[in-house]
Amino acid sequence: MESKLQKLKCHLTEINDLNSAAALLHWDQSTYMPPRGDDARARQIATLGRLAHEKFIDPKIGQLLEELQSSENSLPYDSDDASLIRVTRCDYERAIKVPPTFVAELSSHGSESYQAWTKARPANDFTAVQPYLEKTLDLSRQLADFFPGYEHISDPLIDFADSGMKASIVRTIFAELRAELVPMVTAITSQPAADDSCLRQIYPEPQQIDFGVEVIKRLGYDFNRGRQDKTHHPFMTKFSLGDVRITTRVRENDLSEALFSTMHEAGHALYEQGIGMELEGTPLARGTSASVHESQSRLWENIVGRSRNFWKFFYPKLQLIYPQQLNHTPLETFYRAINKVTRSLIRTDADEVTYNLHVMMRFDLELDLLEGNLKVRDLPEAWRERFKADLGIVPPDDRDGVLQDVHWFCDVIGGNFQGYTLGNILGAQFFETALNAHPQITNQIEAAEFGTLYGWLRDNIYQHGRKYAAPELIERVTGRTLSIAPYIRYLRTKYGELYNL
Amino acid sequence: MESKLQKLKCHLTEINDLNSAAALLHWDQSTYMPPRGDDARARQIATLGRLAHEKFIDPKIGQLLEELQSSENSLPYDSDDASLIRVTRCDYERAIKVPPTFVAELSSHGSESYQAWTKARPANDFTAVQPYLEKTLDLSRQLADFFPGYEHISDPLIDFADSGMKASIVRTIFAELRAELVPMVTAITSQPAADDSCLRQIYPEPQQIDFGVEVIKRLGYDFNRGRQDKTHHPFMTKFSLGDVRITTRVRENDLSEALFSTMHEAGHALYEQGIGMELEGTPLARGTSASVHESQSRLWENIVGRSRNFWKFFYPKLQLIYPQQLNHTPLETFYRAINKVTRSLIRTDADEVTYNLHVMMRFDLELDLLEGNLKVRDLPEAWRERFKADLGIVPPDDRDGVLQDVHWFCDVIGGNFQGYTLGNILGAQFFETALNAHPQITNQIEAAEFGTLYGWLRDNIYQHGRKYAAPELIERVTGRTLSIAPYIRYLRTKYGELYNL
Repeated sequence: MESKLQKLKCHLTEINDLNSAAALLHWDQSTYMPPRGDDARARQIATLGRLAHEKFIDPKIGQLLEELQSSENSLPYDSDDASLIRVTRCDYERAIKVPPTFVAELSSHGSESYQAWTKARPANDFTAVQPYLEKTLDLSRQLADFFPGYEHISDPLIDFADSGMKASIVRTIFAELRAELVPMVTAITSQPAADDSCLRQIYPEPQQIDFGVEVIKRLGYDFNRGRQDKTHHPFMTKFSLGDVRITTRVRENDLSEALFSTMHEAGHALYEQGIGMELEGTPLARGTSASVHESQSRLWENIVGRSRNFWKFFYPKLQLIYPQQLNHTPLETFYRAINKVTRSLIRTDADEVTYNLHVMMRFDLELDLLEGNLKVRDLPEAWRERFKADLGIVPPDDRDGVLQDVHWFCDVIGGNFQGYTLGNILGAQFFETALNAHPQITNQIEAAEFGTLYGWLRDNIYQHGRKYAAPELIERVTGRTLSIAPYIRYLRTKYGELYNL
Repeated sequence: MESKLQKLKCHLTEINDLNSAAALLHWDQSTYMPPRGDDARARQIATLGRLAHEKFIDPKIGQLLEELQSSENSLPYDSDDASLIRVTRCDYERAIKVPPTFVAELSSHGSESYQAWTKARPANDFTAVQPYLEKTLDLSRQLADFFPGYEHISDPLIDFADSGMKASIVRTIFAELRAELVPMVTAITSQPAADDSCLRQIYPEPQQIDFGVEVIKRLGYDFNRGRQDKTHHPFMTKFSLGDVRITTRVRENDLSEALFSTMHEAGHALYEQGIGMELEGTPLARGTSASVHESQSRLWENIVGRSRNFWKFFYPKLQLIYPQQLNHTPLETFYRAINKVTRSLIRTDADEVTYNLHVMMRFDLELDLLEGNLKVRDLPEAWRERFKADLGIVPPDDRDGVLQDVHWFCDVIGGNFQGYTLGNILGAQFFETALNAHPQITNQIEAAEFGTLYGWLRDNIYQHGRKYAAPELIERVTGRTLSIAPYIRYLRTKYGELYNL
């Protein structure tokens, strides 16, 4: 039995090594690769991905999993080995349902769409990507149909990112949340907007980078097991538990850009760096779902990083670095600036409150497209209508409208967006649970001591990697299923105080 | 036929992609990887190397090569396709002679030896690596024995790096060269040493880097298809013909370090960047041998980069950058400083003239070890004796003696060093041929115009990649076999003038 398990682990490590290598090739492409390296790099990444997939769907993996069934049953459910077998079986059964030729088609179509999008967006030319998007929709429906028996056609696609989630659950959650958010946004935006001009002075880059690094070191990000580099679209990536990297982007005329992007990606990285070392090289060694991952980036970026307590400690330090820019700006003004709520065009620039409205409309549009109730050619118009209805403004063009997000142009349609808002909800739910266990966390944040919070998150969430699927993990950690109540309490408390609601 | 060739190319591209990914993992390990990334990285590089090797020795490659024999015969010898089949067959026949288990053993022993060496060298502890080196010697002899029929046991090992070369040829060449060099070194070192104190002032790093970049851009290094980063032990690496990178190392108290290392690695990179794009992704798309590769790094670093003409142009620019350090140093003093000949301990720091003596003693020690005439335990003493005999000094310890080079601690014993001196010889032979074709090159160097020289090298050497094996290439380009005469003429002219010999 031991030797079968060893054999399985050996195969999985090999697959992990191929995927990690592909991740490094991608990181390099996004950070340091010279321009002319592009063609070969795309091919190399595709080769590694294909080889990893071929090796994973090899029937001998299925054979080993079958032979290991009794071993799994005899081990404790949450032992490393039983969890490895269980999670791998689940991945395997999903992977073999999709024919390799389809995976290849999807991947090559994704590359072509992405290329088209990189040209169409600056040109504000939706018609240039429309045929790609039509094919993407077609492929997305085909992909879902490899998983028959679904309740809603988007369910298999949602399940890829958020195992166990489905459209009906998300719809219910989003409806509840929406009922809270829409009046909150109306109430806030009927008041004079916060003044965030203090953020829009000139802040030289090197100090921005240094300050961000100091902040995330305090949060617990370990630079012996990671590093930060600059890129166009910040992301976190991992090559092993000893090498979890983040990237950031600096705008010298917008202090909030690098700062919060750094904290956001560091949040993702804290999760990955916190995974138990004994899981290294296995499929268990990553965050358990898109939502839980996002809960950590949003928790550290927003709940911690945009709190008044946090800035009581860090704002004087920031003033020391940028005295000319900030010495005449009181903490309270700065705090209000970084929490300014406003109806805006771009999801990734949106504040904590309106952000979710951006997500929900995308989620609904994905469902409409998959259901066949919305044609691709009508998507720009549907976007504008929904945007007006939800956010009260109309995008002046498609560039900052329907073309703004990369997701539909490099992946399938379906399952791309729900994780962002579920992450916000979960972040608050986890944070509230941590606070109940350790009420001193609030005061500790004021002293930039994050050890209690980090330790609680690591022990309850991070260390387990993918041992527990998201729904299981949420129940284990919070004692209940996903709930919007803590998030609503968080928003009402914070923004109620800020805007006298 | 076409489809068989396509099939072969497809397999070879996949293998190339795995090897290129491994090269990037290695580059990253040597430049940006955080410390704790090490363990997983070593495993990942090993996995990719193993997979590439497994794929290459797959009998279906042999089958395809056999089926393509008639196709090869019907195509012109130097067509891309005939060359691809010919060179791949040669690689394949060599690769299948070594059992995969042996390859794995050699690779894992190499990693362990390297680890041991990184500790033993600073500790000046030869006995700590002696058992590793004994096993390395044993494995090296075993490796050679997979290629029976050799004249000398080192021949197969030399052939790996320098296809077509063997011990008897190298011995003859080295004996001839030695007969010239030993009296030259004696004559030079009996005179007062050149004053190189101008190089040993404080030269802040950023300007050193910028100056090096400006120089290699002028030489022809294309930053759209490459980049330069810092590392401990500079190297050139390639991920595709569109991505050929170099690394350098800066010492603020030694101006020559970064400058000549940058030109050296750029020389290697000019070769790789000059390979015909039609060869991209195939086994033909690299330099044809270690010696020919080294001929280019040494040609650009030494023959061009340490010439008086070169500095007539660049020295005033360097003075502008470092006025305090250099405004009182005349060009001639600087020129003599960068060409100072001295008996020194470290091969990689040695000047053009004594460098070859360092190489020859290593070459001879490798032969003695492989022949069984020298025991590993007696190697430090043999090193000291030979060093005294050849260079007139005795290393004060093993750290800067027998432990100084990494080669024996990460690879086999045999074939590691001859390429450095053969490269010096070939560099001069190629340069003399280029000069005969285009005498204006001398004056062009004085104006920092390198287009004629670069174009000649590209058209005659670089573009062909591995189409021609080194001996073939040398005859095609210079009209004769490898000859030390041009190198001797070069050294006599340059150092004769410098030292009034």
